[in-house]
Amino acid sequence: MFGARCLVRALRPCSSAPCPRHKPSARLSVRDALGAQNTKGERVKVQGWIRSVRSQKEVLFLHINDGSSLESLQVVADSSFDSRELAFGSSVEVQGQLVKSPSKKQDVELKAEKIEVVGICDAKAFPFKYKERHPLEYLRQYPHLRCRTNALGSILRVRSEATNAIHSFFKDSGFVHIHTPIITSNDCEGAGELFQVEPSSKIKVPEKNFFSVPAFLTVSGQLHLEVMSGAFTQVFTFGPTFRAENSQSRRHLAEFYMVEAEISFVESLQDLMQVMEGLFKTATMTVLSNCPEDVELCHKFIAPGQKDRLEHMLKNNFLIISYTEAIEILKQASQNFTFTPEWGVDLHTEHEKYLVKHCGNIPVFVINYPLALKPFYMRDNEDGPQHTVAAVDLLVPGVGELFGGSLREERYHFLEPRLARSGLTEAYQWYLDLRRFGSVPHGGFGMGFERYLQCILGIDNIKDVIPFPRFTHSCIL
Amino acid sequence: MFGARCLVRALRPCSSAPCPRHKPSARLSVRDALGAQNTKGERVKVQGWIRSVRSQKEVLFLHINDGSSLESLQVVADSSFDSRELAFGSSVEVQGQLVKSPSKKQDVELKAEKIEVVGICDAKAFPFKYKERHPLEYLRQYPHLRCRTNALGSILRVRSEATNAIHSFFKDSGFVHIHTPIITSNDCEGAGELFQVEPSSKIKVPEKNFFSVPAFLTVSGQLHLEVMSGAFTQVFTFGPTFRAENSQSRRHLAEFYMVEAEISFVESLQDLMQVMEGLFKTATMTVLSNCPEDVELCHKFIAPGQKDRLEHMLKNNFLIISYTEAIEILKQASQNFTFTPEWGVDLHTEHEKYLVKHCGNIPVFVINYPLALKPFYMRDNEDGPQHTVAAVDLLVPGVGELFGGSLREERYHFLEPRLARSGLTEAYQWYLDLRRFGSVPHGGFGMGFERYLQCILGIDNIKDVIPFPRFTHSCIL
Repeated sequence: MFGARCLVRALRPCSSAPCPRHKPSARLSVRDALGAQNTKGERVKVQGWIRSVRSQKEVLFLHINDGSSLESLQVVADSSFDSRELAFGSSVEVQGQLVKSPSKKQDVELKAEKIEVVGICDAKAFPFKYKERHPLEYLRQYPHLRCRTNALGSILRVRSEATNAIHSFFKDSGFVHIHTPIITSNDCEGAGELFQVEPSSKIKVPEKNFFSVPAFLTVSGQLHLEVMSGAFTQVFTFGPTFRAENSQSRRHLAEFYMVEAEISFVESLQDLMQVMEGLFKTATMTVLSNCPEDVELCHKFIAPGQKDRLEHMLKNNFLIISYTEAIEILKQASQNFTFTPEWGVDLHTEHEKYLVKHCGNIPVFVINYPLALKPFYMRDNEDGPQHTVAAVDLLVPGVGELFGGSLREERYHFLEPRLARSGLTEAYQWYLDLRRFGSVPHGGFGMGFERYLQCILGIDNIKDVIPFPRFTHSCIL
Repeated sequence: MFGARCLVRALRPCSSAPCPRHKPSARLSVRDALGAQNTKGERVKVQGWIRSVRSQKEVLFLHINDGSSLESLQVVADSSFDSRELAFGSSVEVQGQLVKSPSKKQDVELKAEKIEVVGICDAKAFPFKYKERHPLEYLRQYPHLRCRTNALGSILRVRSEATNAIHSFFKDSGFVHIHTPIITSNDCEGAGELFQVEPSSKIKVPEKNFFSVPAFLTVSGQLHLEVMSGAFTQVFTFGPTFRAENSQSRRHLAEFYMVEAEISFVESLQDLMQVMEGLFKTATMTVLSNCPEDVELCHKFIAPGQKDRLEHMLKNNFLIISYTEAIEILKQASQNFTFTPEWGVDLHTEHEKYLVKHCGNIPVFVINYPLALKPFYMRDNEDGPQHTVAAVDLLVPGVGELFGGSLREERYHFLEPRLARSGLTEAYQWYLDLRRFGSVPHGGFGMGFERYLQCILGIDNIKDVIPFPRFTHSCIL
């Protein structure tokens, strides 16, 4: 349909200018080859990397993978093709006929007529060995090569599918996508574990700060989304966020992805929780239906039992308890906690785990937290001596906190004194403005994308669900 | 379909725990109300912000907008509803009957039965005035409010649609989406205009560097995509990139978005250019068909003539000239350039503009640049004394360079000496590894997303096509 014209043809008679040759038409991805319906001996070309070689007396079997699917394509060749270069990890181009396979292991195989080794693989130096299954910790040492293994291949294809499923969920629900800024001058909203951004020392900048103010990497797009929800009603963002947390835990990264949504004219946490549950279930069902083999690999070899646990989460309605009820449940627990549960104190991971188990391993929303524990923007419940805000966390099996959200304080006369108390009135004048000009009740939430992937796939360490993990002392590549 | 169960019902008898009330079912977005087919007087609820008020003797007309579309919904009410609070910028909730409109201006209108002012708008302080069209430069002073204007509303809805269209193009073409890292330790690939990342001074970190190595904000995901193309064959990323460029131009930002793709087994620039042209045309046609009113607003009021210019780009095949031909064309030009065109010197904006005009305002690919001008990873054309690499830039009317790409040097024995000459062999050992283990010919490109939006909408200043622009001396919010 498209295709640039050589100007040499268009504007002037053809000269010595290079006129690139055209793409051959019979090229098929492994996925398309495997899915071919009428295998009546079409001549095709398949390109990829050798995953296995098996040489019999008169026949050579190769398995070729190009990352388009977990499954490889079986190539059957005359043994005369055999060569030392046709080895694990080498890249090849195979031309031949796509035929029905006599074996039950696959529907289709490629009868090779021509095999070309494109790039050999230095087997001695290659860190992955033929027929060996390497543990995820081992693979982590090779961020530039681990994506070539079945495990990381599947996880990253699921990540790609999940990214798409999340975008689709919001688009189908009428949300406008917003790129909230990565560099921000809001420095006072959160925990203080911020990365600061400055031009590299090699660059000469006239002033002290490039941006004239100190600038930081974002920890959340929420406040910027609130700006946008005042125009588009329903908005979302899906991008990187950062914490300079000195942690090597299996649940934390210095750079991770968040899905955040903000919705205007929302008056109850129930409305928000419906969207959160809808997002989790719709995205997950889309992933399960679009890449079942990749999910199955994780559920079978990495996290046995995870398939049932996930089905249990999907088929049950999520539960709701209040923070106050959660504290009661924890106080009545027979288990001894390292941190004694007490009203007014934040929940710890051990508490979250207990609550999820107590709720039958069904995801549970914990709502209405003490005002004193939460940031200035959460909506005051005006509920007497205990004094809570309309906050909500979703706790899920295996991972703990997956979502956090709240109704926002849309009432100027509630928000202004809270900002003033923290000396933030001036810095957040723009945020107060949103309450002066057509303010509406609104709320939103954020979901940690890597934790979501950990939750559906059962991957224990967060470093295995992101292509290039960044954490204390580690920024490889 | 979904909906969490209150645990109070599920686990214990209902107590005093808050049981949030349910969402009313008749709520409609303005877009859905405008598109309603059978307006037989259904009772609906619409929420949004007042865009105009017109009071006649016995009737009150309001226009309500909620950002779901450019068009507002006309509300017709009895004049008894009139009140000072029903003013430009206020947020309202209107309940009533959706009926066929007697006017030709709209198909549908809402006969109000109940109007509730949700949040008043302090008209005196509100920087936008009723019935006034404010210039984009003026709006830029109010990044927290400008999205509420027609112009920015349309631009940001187009941005959201274009984001979706780009994701769809790649998904439909079998690409795997990759989140390339934002923080990277690759410091030597490009121009040197890097932002460095350090924990904010408030945090105590034992070592000098949080990551144990100096860390920077990415200028391109290309090298990381090359890693992934060695596993998945076709990959893309769409995320923020950064340049600490001391520039206030209408074409540069410190934080901007890039769409980047990398494809294995690509042997000619022609193959790459086909994907680039396909991306541009498919995404643009999707945007034109999904939000025609928003595009029309820009083409009508902001960039008259742009509709024809864009159609001209879409209906013609893009052109191809070599860098050498481009220099010849420039040398023969009657125009006087500030920078004299000369083989071996980079093209300047004035040259790019001339070339596009010379090519009849059709986008033009310029290919095969001098090796000395380009980074180490571009593929050597081995073409004798002039010595070029297989690089390609796409120049488009109004914007200049929109895409940049190249075939990559996949041959170890070509790449290694080039890295060695720059003293980079050790730092790029991982990159050389990709050529030791099943190397394949490959190539890729990047497209500046804001420039793409400028190009299709005809927006002159890049600061108007991104929600929160960051540039020298400016990081508002």
